[in-house]
Amino acid sequence: MRLVYQGKTKDVYEDDDCLIFHFKDNILGFESKEDTGGNEVIGRREGKGSAILKETEFFFKLLEENGIRTHFVERINERRAKFLKAEKIPLEVIYRFKAYGSFLRRYGKIVKPLQKLDIIEFTLKDDALGDPLICEEAVEKLGIASKEEIEEMKRITRKVAQILKEFFESRGLEIIDFKLEFGRRNGELLVIDEISGDTMRVMKEGQVLKQEEILEVIE
Amino acid sequence: MRLVYQGKTKDVYEDDDCLIFHFKDNILGFESKEDTGGNEVIGRREGKGSAILKETEFFFKLLEENGIRTHFVERINERRAKFLKAEKIPLEVIYRFKAYGSFLRRYGKIVKPLQKLDIIEFTLKDDALGDPLICEEAVEKLGIASKEEIEEMKRITRKVAQILKEFFESRGLEIIDFKLEFGRRNGELLVIDEISGDTMRVMKEGQVLKQEEILEVIE
Repeated sequence: MRLVYQGKTKDVYEDDDCLIFHFKDNILGFESKEDTGGNEVIGRREGKGSAILKETEFFFKLLEENGIRTHFVERINERRAKFLKAEKIPLEVIYRFKAYGSFLRRYGKIVKPLQKLDIIEFTLKDDALGDPLICEEAVEKLGIASKEEIEEMKRITRKVAQILKEFFESRGLEIIDFKLEFGRRNGELLVIDEISGDTMRVMKEGQVLKQEEILEVIE
Repeated sequence: MRLVYQGKTKDVYEDDDCLIFHFKDNILGFESKEDTGGNEVIGRREGKGSAILKETEFFFKLLEENGIRTHFVERINERRAKFLKAEKIPLEVIYRFKAYGSFLRRYGKIVKPLQKLDIIEFTLKDDALGDPLICEEAVEKLGIASKEEIEEMKRITRKVAQILKEFFESRGLEIIDFKLEFGRRNGELLVIDEISGDTMRVMKEGQVLKQEEILEVIE
């Protein structure tokens, strides 16, 4: 088993045709404040890694039940799970039901917090550059994804938005935004990486839930 | 005549149904280096304002001759010209023939300098926020422009790209990028603001021309 990637919240190992994700206890934030939409490690919380894995397993299974292909295979233990290998597309595909976080910082006064959006944005996955926004024409012309793949990612992301919205609404909660990543495998696009409290914002009575509160929702 | 706007490179006055632009001698740059794509005032050059007006008059007339509606009316003197009033859309519409400037800074190593692009990008016109990139879905959902207006701005921008490309090619030069602004008047979109050496980059033998060298090209 060979270590192929060390990330902020997980390490990735390679094993035959599969990847093994090892989920770590690091907490993400923005400007030293915990924020599930944040992009910097601001501390650790015991048990966070295993909670993220439980959430990821739950949401990937929820998507698969609804006809969306993901790279999840099976859980190995509390912190590790097996995933199909896929050629990673270096984009984050963000669905924004409402305006929050970086969207508010980016556009200032022309947008009201929690203003209804229902839009998809693409960002280039590059920590050193701060995951910059990228328009669809640039995604295509830089050879990151084809026009057909862009349309397919948007179609899948809208379907996932509908599934997650219904799931949280049925529990009296409101999802504000989430991000997906995609990979190519055998000519098909799979949802890859993780889907967890670290990759979405969910609100209850005007407050964004903490990542461990997302775990309570699914248990 | 009432002063309605004081900008980095021009002041704008209102007079009956028209606007009067007064072009100033300020030079734009990025990180204290002169750059026609820059967004900060880095100094002054005597005669720059009148040169920008000559360029703007030339390019607006070139567009009008090619069937593109602009807000240019007539020159008043060396530094001033009359323009039709229009409801300004707070966007910069950028056409990139090749990768340069902020595009390179934004996407780092995944893009090669002068890589062929032929793409349109929208940025929100807001100096304090650094004119952030904005995706088409956000332009629409934030009520900045309708879907039809976005398509029309793109159609006009592609036509302007073709006109400018042919113009510079006929003089042995290569245009790298340019930006347009649009306004609404009587249910129609007009190209507004200015088109000059401050709003485009043109290359000769691998070097970007200075704004005053653009003037030499049209004279």
